[in-house]
Amino acid sequence: MGPLLAAPAVGTLLIVKNYTGDRLNFGLAREQARAEGIPVEMVVVGDDSAFTVLKKAGRRGLCGTVLIHKVSFCGTAANGRPSHTSFLVGTLGVSLSSCSVPGSRPTFELSADEVELGLGIHGEAGVLRIKMATADEIVAHMLNHMTDSSNVSHVPVQSGSSVVLMVNNLGGLSYLELGIIADAAVRFLEGRGVKIARALVGTFMSALEMPGVSLTLLLVDEPLLKLIDAETTAAAWPNVAKVSVTGRKRSRAAPAEPPEAPDATAAGGATSKQMVRVLERVCTTLLGLEDQLNALDRAAGDGDCGTTHSRAARAIQGWLKESPPPASPAQLLSKLSLLLLEKMGGSSGALYGLFLTAAAQPLKAKTDLAAWSAAMDAGLEAMQKYGKAAPGDRTMLDSLWAAGQELQAWKSPGANLLPVLTKAVKNAEAAAEATKNMEAGAGRASYISSARLDQPDPGAVAAAAILRAILEVLQSQGA
Amino acid sequence: MGPLLAAPAVGTLLIVKNYTGDRLNFGLAREQARAEGIPVEMVVVGDDSAFTVLKKAGRRGLCGTVLIHKVSFCGTAANGRPSHTSFLVGTLGVSLSSCSVPGSRPTFELSADEVELGLGIHGEAGVLRIKMATADEIVAHMLNHMTDSSNVSHVPVQSGSSVVLMVNNLGGLSYLELGIIADAAVRFLEGRGVKIARALVGTFMSALEMPGVSLTLLLVDEPLLKLIDAETTAAAWPNVAKVSVTGRKRSRAAPAEPPEAPDATAAGGATSKQMVRVLERVCTTLLGLEDQLNALDRAAGDGDCGTTHSRAARAIQGWLKESPPPASPAQLLSKLSLLLLEKMGGSSGALYGLFLTAAAQPLKAKTDLAAWSAAMDAGLEAMQKYGKAAPGDRTMLDSLWAAGQELQAWKSPGANLLPVLTKAVKNAEAAAEATKNMEAGAGRASYISSARLDQPDPGAVAAAAILRAILEVLQSQGA
Repeated sequence: MGPLLAAPAVGTLLIVKNYTGDRLNFGLAREQARAEGIPVEMVVVGDDSAFTVLKKAGRRGLCGTVLIHKVSFCGTAANGRPSHTSFLVGTLGVSLSSCSVPGSRPTFELSADEVELGLGIHGEAGVLRIKMATADEIVAHMLNHMTDSSNVSHVPVQSGSSVVLMVNNLGGLSYLELGIIADAAVRFLEGRGVKIARALVGTFMSALEMPGVSLTLLLVDEPLLKLIDAETTAAAWPNVAKVSVTGRKRSRAAPAEPPEAPDATAAGGATSKQMVRVLERVCTTLLGLEDQLNALDRAAGDGDCGTTHSRAARAIQGWLKESPPPASPAQLLSKLSLLLLEKMGGSSGALYGLFLTAAAQPLKAKTDLAAWSAAMDAGLEAMQKYGKAAPGDRTMLDSLWAAGQELQAWKSPGANLLPVLTKAVKNAEAAAEATKNMEAGAGRASYISSARLDQPDPGAVAAAAILRAILEVLQSQGA
Repeated sequence: MGPLLAAPAVGTLLIVKNYTGDRLNFGLAREQARAEGIPVEMVVVGDDSAFTVLKKAGRRGLCGTVLIHKVSFCGTAANGRPSHTSFLVGTLGVSLSSCSVPGSRPTFELSADEVELGLGIHGEAGVLRIKMATADEIVAHMLNHMTDSSNVSHVPVQSGSSVVLMVNNLGGLSYLELGIIADAAVRFLEGRGVKIARALVGTFMSALEMPGVSLTLLLVDEPLLKLIDAETTAAAWPNVAKVSVTGRKRSRAAPAEPPEAPDATAAGGATSKQMVRVLERVCTTLLGLEDQLNALDRAAGDGDCGTTHSRAARAIQGWLKESPPPASPAQLLSKLSLLLLEKMGGSSGALYGLFLTAAAQPLKAKTDLAAWSAAMDAGLEAMQKYGKAAPGDRTMLDSLWAAGQELQAWKSPGANLLPVLTKAVKNAEAAAEATKNMEAGAGRASYISSARLDQPDPGAVAAAAILRAILEVLQSQGA
């Protein structure tokens, strides 16, 4: 750029993407301005790395132009004139389909199993059409093409190079896909020994709603990187962290958990054996109820309540086969919570998980009847708090809450296990039956008109059945 | 939030969108963390303004949650604990179609002439389906729904309110559409007397590739606005200007130009009359060549070269009918330049516009033969510079450049107009004819193999014909 920009605010710099129409029309604007005595300079950016043989028209201006805007502006602001006048930059686009100029048909046709490489930002077709492949394969194809020295429009990136990587949404790509592409590009480049100084991921230069992405590589040294990092008020410039991407600690998929050490407390004591029997009875009870629970659920939900509870039962059975459960009630409930979360699934899994996690806490210090009653209270409180259901809302909470009311008696000195639990179970069963007259206030059934609900809630029925199963085992053992 | 956050970095704040699954699972995570003695607080955000009648599940958490993240984080950073614990915020989404969870079918079906209002970010269907309407109508529908006090989930925005407006891309919307929606929302709200303190436009909370948008309104006062403006290193937070949108000067479509004052120099002088005759002859010549130029162009381009030149000719004829052209050659060429840019269109219009703008400059000071030769030089230079064509590239430049070489003779003392111009025109015609043996180096024909090009370039033929028409008028008048 010439001396016209030697001092700030003495002239205008046009940064023009290299397309014939752009060159002509901005050139004309420049000539008209100069005819009126206004100093205007013009730089034409061509960063396209698609064409392996160049016509006179040269490389098209693509997303790399945005980086030139940034460094030219920040360089001019700092020095009174642009500090860099040439850049080693390359861009390549890829898309899953074309875009449509409003009111017009798509600019090119692509079948569902094809992707187009090297297309332009005005929707012009690309230089290469390949079969659909994985993100890793497509990114490798793009970056190889862009950096291949036999490609006359390549960008000379090699092992040891420092680059700014730009992952640009061409318009209609989801952020999920954008992130997958960015991850693939970072891994590919780092695998080649390229240092990624900065990575910009977002929508910087789009082609209407084109569901595609372009990759831009700009070779940088420290002075250029300073201009990339310089503060700007441009609203579209992202809040890029001013640290290198390469060398930063990143987490990929979580590493597999180390195999768990055998639980020291899992001795085959009397309590543990009793708990195993309780759990086994709960499982067989739920498996026996599968069809009935599904039938109840079909009237109000999606008919899978029995299936969900059976899934939980089979998961518990599998777990019991593998190893004896922890003897400590707090640990047992915590483990059960994680198991149901992982294997039962859905809102039921989360609700039981929540109930058990909270219920485990009062049992850490003591395991007497008062602590078990407190455990029930804690579980019910968590379930209400996070699930937003209250007693009377026609959910599993109705049974559990009814039982919990009776279990308060365990807090009195000298309370007996079985008489109180028997009353609690009867109370829970009555509450489950009563749900058939309730309007649904929470859960999936709350979207159904109450007139259509004339059966008890399957979740409430299941919860009461679980309590009954526990009682029966304890009774049979004369606990 | 409680005293656990009274000092920085003593605990964790979970900001959870109000969905049953989110509440349960984040609630469970909180309970598990607390069971390990880690202080965790949790706030549930419900900003959905879709539902006019609320179920117990309450308002869903939508894009407004992003604003709560921002102000909670910045408020905590500043004060050691969140400074605000309740917000007046509402969000409503609209989409042109559904999204697809990868590997699954779209979550709901919508016909091409329908739009869905009040949908959720997991792809769940909305509360209302309306017929396709203009952006203004849809935005009015949305904002009326969101602020209607009979809607139990409305946000109480009224005349005099200050708001932060968020225009959020749900995934696959183009930036063009996003801008149209943002503009419509700003005009609607300002029309109701609402002050838009800040506007954020971008992708903040998306639903995969859903081609839709959500609008969020957050009522703000000065302290809250300070938190919105506070610096953050969050990469996705935009560089929002810290000034109010309302009250800022904005340009809409350019105002119509005032009718031009009659040109003082446009007297019906001899020179002006001669120029009118020259232009008229140029126009009839080009109109007579339309079919021939189109035929030549069909072999190498898209067959519209004659049509383009005829469009220019009719535009000049219309302009001449309206008012006499400026007598000053510099002004005449400048006006012609603007006319061709506007009416001729395409690259030809830009190239002729560029040529005429540049050519007008040397004619400002003098209008002798040397100045006309300099005008030709300036025009040719501009055309080569911005059009990137050189002589021999099989373009209109070939004819003009050949003529320009002969016109150098006008720079010698005592040069004669007609003999030089006659030679120049013959030279131009020979150059036009010679293009049939040239390989195309620029312009559209450069994409065609040279073996298929055995006719002269239509642009070169037209340029030579224009020069011939000028010569004939000047000859007939014995200039």
